[in-house]
Amino acid sequence: MKPLILVSNDDSVYARGIQTIVEIAKEFGEVVVVAPDSPQSAKSHAVTLESPIYYKKTSVFGDIEAYKCSGTPADSVKMALFKILDRKPDLVISGINHGANYSTNLIYSGTLAAAIEGFMHDIPSIAFSVDSHNPDADFSIAKEYSRKIIKEVLNNKTSEICLNVNIPDVKLEDVKGSLICRQTKGAWAENFVEMEHPRSQKPFYWLTGDYINKEPEKTDTDVWAVENNYVAIVPIQIDFTNYKMMTEMKKWNL
Amino acid sequence: MKPLILVSNDDSVYARGIQTIVEIAKEFGEVVVVAPDSPQSAKSHAVTLESPIYYKKTSVFGDIEAYKCSGTPADSVKMALFKILDRKPDLVISGINHGANYSTNLIYSGTLAAAIEGFMHDIPSIAFSVDSHNPDADFSIAKEYSRKIIKEVLNNKTSEICLNVNIPDVKLEDVKGSLICRQTKGAWAENFVEMEHPRSQKPFYWLTGDYINKEPEKTDTDVWAVENNYVAIVPIQIDFTNYKMMTEMKKWNL
Repeated sequence: MKPLILVSNDDSVYARGIQTIVEIAKEFGEVVVVAPDSPQSAKSHAVTLESPIYYKKTSVFGDIEAYKCSGTPADSVKMALFKILDRKPDLVISGINHGANYSTNLIYSGTLAAAIEGFMHDIPSIAFSVDSHNPDADFSIAKEYSRKIIKEVLNNKTSEICLNVNIPDVKLEDVKGSLICRQTKGAWAENFVEMEHPRSQKPFYWLTGDYINKEPEKTDTDVWAVENNYVAIVPIQIDFTNYKMMTEMKKWNL
Repeated sequence: MKPLILVSNDDSVYARGIQTIVEIAKEFGEVVVVAPDSPQSAKSHAVTLESPIYYKKTSVFGDIEAYKCSGTPADSVKMALFKILDRKPDLVISGINHGANYSTNLIYSGTLAAAIEGFMHDIPSIAFSVDSHNPDADFSIAKEYSRKIIKEVLNNKTSEICLNVNIPDVKLEDVKGSLICRQTKGAWAENFVEMEHPRSQKPFYWLTGDYINKEPEKTDTDVWAVENNYVAIVPIQIDFTNYKMMTEMKKWNL
């Protein structure tokens, strides 16, 4: 039986990124798409508990079986695994996201959440993002490297793998290769842009901000890799425990 | 100057849990509340980028300065830090959540996300949850232990601390103390309950499921602690990198 590959994302079934990765995934097995019906950027690992969710078949991907889901990226993957698919997929792919998902952004990313949702159900999973919000971004590197990475993950046959991949926005001939790296320490210097409501004259705000790299000199980080024309590959784990602090806290009076 | 304590949550400014923790926090300094104006359970670390956000003063907390925010828990804390407060708080408290936030649930939790948002901006932060969805749950243990924990965190004077605290649903005399522990490995066996739309007759789904503890015998975990009448305290970090896998992947052909 050919490998079953579930494809999802956070930019919705209508995004160019998911069209691109479906074309690549097809080379490796049977592809089913279950992805949000509307953009879900920065939805993190949110799931929908207080309202119902539904899904609909869509012909957006031609002869590929595909569904659009009213929920978040995590909802879409849960819906695929527990309602739509008749067998467990061999791989979950999320993306290709338009915009980098590295450093601090991992905690906000809907793209990574969809991959993590597969990983939490013991399925190898990969999230792909390109470092460009340009709708006409060059996907040549994404195509070449996603092919390599999907092949290795399928060959590796372990369920213990979740990869977060960021692709630099350069020409294919300028990419220096891939680097296995770690999540960069960083933060957002938030900025709320104030505007006035046209009827009530009351203020409302848009969340914006600037990314601050807290370790720009470190060459083993995902931001360094992408900024230096490497494809950044970070293996992912989902344990929030700060083990070092556990030891330090033994001294506390609790 | 008295310590400034920012209080937020994911159950909204109208929840009983936040009323309770505000009363405790008042004993330690000046309190300002900035929390969602509607319930935001399972919103994870979602932030609002594609629509505007606004906030309004509320008198729900009597003489305590308080604002309700139209966004998520993470939005509320960002809004507080970068728009509402005139100085950086000494502590961010999130909760008290109605329902446990342990094991796999950490990735879905809006309560923890509010605390993490403070932590990401170098402010010591604590998330509190009680293991009960009963609106009349007994908060005596929550009161006693939140007091102890807030005191220790303020005394400790480090910005490098984020704590996730879960309180067992037992009587105060039955609690055995607190345990510093780690996040339990677990998963959700998801189940979508199907219903029929009353007009279109098309199906829609509610996400439900059963929690599976993958290591029920381990006594150093947050689930074990809560189930055995301890207050579970897990120090939190936000690095998703799987360092062990980084080494293993060196053999891969990428």
